[in-house]
Amino acid sequence: MNEKQKRSGTEDLPLMQKITALCKRRGFVFQSSEIYGGLKSAYDYGPLGVELKRNLMQDWWRRMVHEREDVVGIDASIIMSPRVWEASGHVAGFSDPLVDCKLCKARFRADKAPAVTPGSEVEYRAHGKTLKGQAERGYVCPECGSPELSEERAFNLMFKTSLGPVDTADNTVYLRPETAQAMFVNFLNVQQTYRLRLPFGIAQQGKSFRNEITVEHFIFRSCEFEQMEMEFFCEPETSDTWLDYWKNERFDWYLSLGANPQKLRLRAHDKDELAHYARGCYDIEYEYPWGWDELEGIANRTDYDLRKHQEHSGKKLTYFDPARIDPATGKPGMHFLPHVIEPAAGATRSVLMFLLDAYDEEPPSEGRQEGRVVLRLHPRLAPIKVAVFPLVKKDEWLTAKSREIVKEFWRGSVNAFYDEKDAIGRRYARQDEAGTPFCITVDGQTRDDDTVTLRFRDDMRQERIPVAEAVDIVVRKLRP
Amino acid sequence: MNEKQKRSGTEDLPLMQKITALCKRRGFVFQSSEIYGGLKSAYDYGPLGVELKRNLMQDWWRRMVHEREDVVGIDASIIMSPRVWEASGHVAGFSDPLVDCKLCKARFRADKAPAVTPGSEVEYRAHGKTLKGQAERGYVCPECGSPELSEERAFNLMFKTSLGPVDTADNTVYLRPETAQAMFVNFLNVQQTYRLRLPFGIAQQGKSFRNEITVEHFIFRSCEFEQMEMEFFCEPETSDTWLDYWKNERFDWYLSLGANPQKLRLRAHDKDELAHYARGCYDIEYEYPWGWDELEGIANRTDYDLRKHQEHSGKKLTYFDPARIDPATGKPGMHFLPHVIEPAAGATRSVLMFLLDAYDEEPPSEGRQEGRVVLRLHPRLAPIKVAVFPLVKKDEWLTAKSREIVKEFWRGSVNAFYDEKDAIGRRYARQDEAGTPFCITVDGQTRDDDTVTLRFRDDMRQERIPVAEAVDIVVRKLRP
Repeated sequence: MNEKQKRSGTEDLPLMQKITALCKRRGFVFQSSEIYGGLKSAYDYGPLGVELKRNLMQDWWRRMVHEREDVVGIDASIIMSPRVWEASGHVAGFSDPLVDCKLCKARFRADKAPAVTPGSEVEYRAHGKTLKGQAERGYVCPECGSPELSEERAFNLMFKTSLGPVDTADNTVYLRPETAQAMFVNFLNVQQTYRLRLPFGIAQQGKSFRNEITVEHFIFRSCEFEQMEMEFFCEPETSDTWLDYWKNERFDWYLSLGANPQKLRLRAHDKDELAHYARGCYDIEYEYPWGWDELEGIANRTDYDLRKHQEHSGKKLTYFDPARIDPATGKPGMHFLPHVIEPAAGATRSVLMFLLDAYDEEPPSEGRQEGRVVLRLHPRLAPIKVAVFPLVKKDEWLTAKSREIVKEFWRGSVNAFYDEKDAIGRRYARQDEAGTPFCITVDGQTRDDDTVTLRFRDDMRQERIPVAEAVDIVVRKLRP
Repeated sequence: MNEKQKRSGTEDLPLMQKITALCKRRGFVFQSSEIYGGLKSAYDYGPLGVELKRNLMQDWWRRMVHEREDVVGIDASIIMSPRVWEASGHVAGFSDPLVDCKLCKARFRADKAPAVTPGSEVEYRAHGKTLKGQAERGYVCPECGSPELSEERAFNLMFKTSLGPVDTADNTVYLRPETAQAMFVNFLNVQQTYRLRLPFGIAQQGKSFRNEITVEHFIFRSCEFEQMEMEFFCEPETSDTWLDYWKNERFDWYLSLGANPQKLRLRAHDKDELAHYARGCYDIEYEYPWGWDELEGIANRTDYDLRKHQEHSGKKLTYFDPARIDPATGKPGMHFLPHVIEPAAGATRSVLMFLLDAYDEEPPSEGRQEGRVVLRLHPRLAPIKVAVFPLVKKDEWLTAKSREIVKEFWRGSVNAFYDEKDAIGRRYARQDEAGTPFCITVDGQTRDDDTVTLRFRDDMRQERIPVAEAVDIVVRKLRP
């Protein structure tokens, strides 16, 4: 039993409640279909949340695809041929052990249930009485504690549906449980059309779906989630070096967006934790309110996936290197299956991590009667980059000037927000909670000397700056 | 029967074949799961295609969300509560009339089958003979022409799946057939958390799924597709004005990205074409190789959707205007359901339109032995904005200098591409086909005076420019 299984996963600290409340109050994340009572573990991103998620995913794409010569992107269908999932092993093996409690009828995952010593005596409550019994297995019902349980049944985590008008076994298809397989299936198409030479990577972002029984921790584990994955194809003998490179590169990405290094760690998988095909694996973990848990996995998958797809499709998926000496012939020119390093990150999960990491409460202090809630998001992640306020709403010159400045930001591709409602202090407070790094206030002095007040979110410092410099000052903070 | 139904939809002009071949050859769009024989009507976007689609969707988001005070974005779950689709009418009514041919066993949509006069005599082929028969209905089998047909059955277009481990009616859920309903369901959440006043819009981009029987025209109509939709909530008496505003605004967006105005038109729906709840509707149509067909619809949906969700959820979805005089009381302060204008665009469909529109072939001319294929994509849409070539691959100074210039572009958030393979002429030709608007060549002279050759895709003009100006010249062309 590894560290993750030992945690019960239910005793979240109050921080999680604060984040959930903030998300709902300010429009980061809503429960899906809320007016209909919600849907288990489904979430909708509101106006601030969608911008945060887009910024995060765009920054990944910039760093992983645009700013590299050796990685290209794809965007594949969510519904792929079912044979893809037969080859990958998801149809046969991608399942959770599911158990029903005979007493209270709870349905739960065996590997998430409270652990006990098999054969030991356990106490549990039923019909208002405390009962005793013997635990046959290494766990009991998480609801009532009973050891009277059904057999374990394997339950496939893939969502099944039918392509075409009639539901038959013939037209069963699945919602992808991961984006990764599309990169393997498209490996040769991409390599050949883009004339790529090893080593190179194929990256993809998008939704994946897992019919999870245990959903937990808000958007941390939900049935519908968003991934950012890359498969890096390399010569077999270089794969250890590339695994090392990618674990560091990926760790550094989180730091580059301002994540607290004290709460991030790289953890090498133990031998017994490794998937059977993996030659090595690291998790990037974050210290969530419930403990250290996964953010991203970086695995050396060897040639396992390409080999499986080659077998199942009957199509040759080898790469040809005209220079490499083929040991079979002793001559240059060799066909072989590359090995693969896979950095697989969760976009949804990263949104939660950055929200938790950025959340701060400041108590009242000298000169400030009220405390404040502030999201110290990196400017590149912040949903709104700059808010522009006319000091007085009724002064038409001020409102027109403020809107002019907003448009200047838009022309510079900066997401600026205009707000004239309530007193300036309340407008600042609203932007602090939204994570907006800069506020600009237009006032009477602006009319005289074309300057405005620039206010910084983190230290609430205020500076007088010329309007003409405003866009440049903000844009500089947004550069990688 | 409208214009669309009269076209057979199969006699695509050769341009479609050219586009399909280019998409495959250059990595814009591949058939999904190709190594497994493909999947009906499912497509994967390759390295160039994913960039084109992202650019298109990003430009929509910029113009519809970022650069407007009155529109905010959301990103909702694909799997929503099934009650959403009961309220919207999709569970009961969202179906195609499906028919089987008794003779050749073809399954087809009644509303897409060849039209005949009911009661007329028709000829068809079976068992090697020409037969005659009487058409009972207004159509015959599209495969063999037979009038011997099964009854029409309604077939629901939504993909059905199960949330949770057991398939029961209780846990049936659907993949959304449109993104729009999420905006209605989240209307009050968004309005209240973002403190919005009428009129305002809620926008969303994302995948939708329809179990279409008739898929056609490459990525034009596929079961999995991507949408860009916005619901604009306004006072009931202003809805006609806003419909007018949005039809023009949306038409203008396509023009702003360089679409040929001769091939675009706005078409008002006839009274008998209108959905029963719609007060008015326009289609933006493009002249595809198979004729004029839909690109986007802009509809006045009145308060139909909010009213339906209010009824089904039992939750009040009215908007409160403190200033509006309530006719019931004669006093300020009124609760009412806003009316809605919906511009609903297809992202997948727009990608096809812009590819078709940009495709050009130039014959050989004086001074050029070979003709060329060129994609005249707007620079904002182009997957690669600028390609940088060292004149000679073996000169390390040239390759290093070229890569330095590429990095300068990256720092300016411009997607630049380095290429050193083959002769310069072939490198230009490759970029012409990819739609890259600018190429820069670094040569011996660069070493002396720090200038490079800038080559323009459209007219193949070449200019000598200082390296220091390169980024600015390109960035200026990318501004809206």
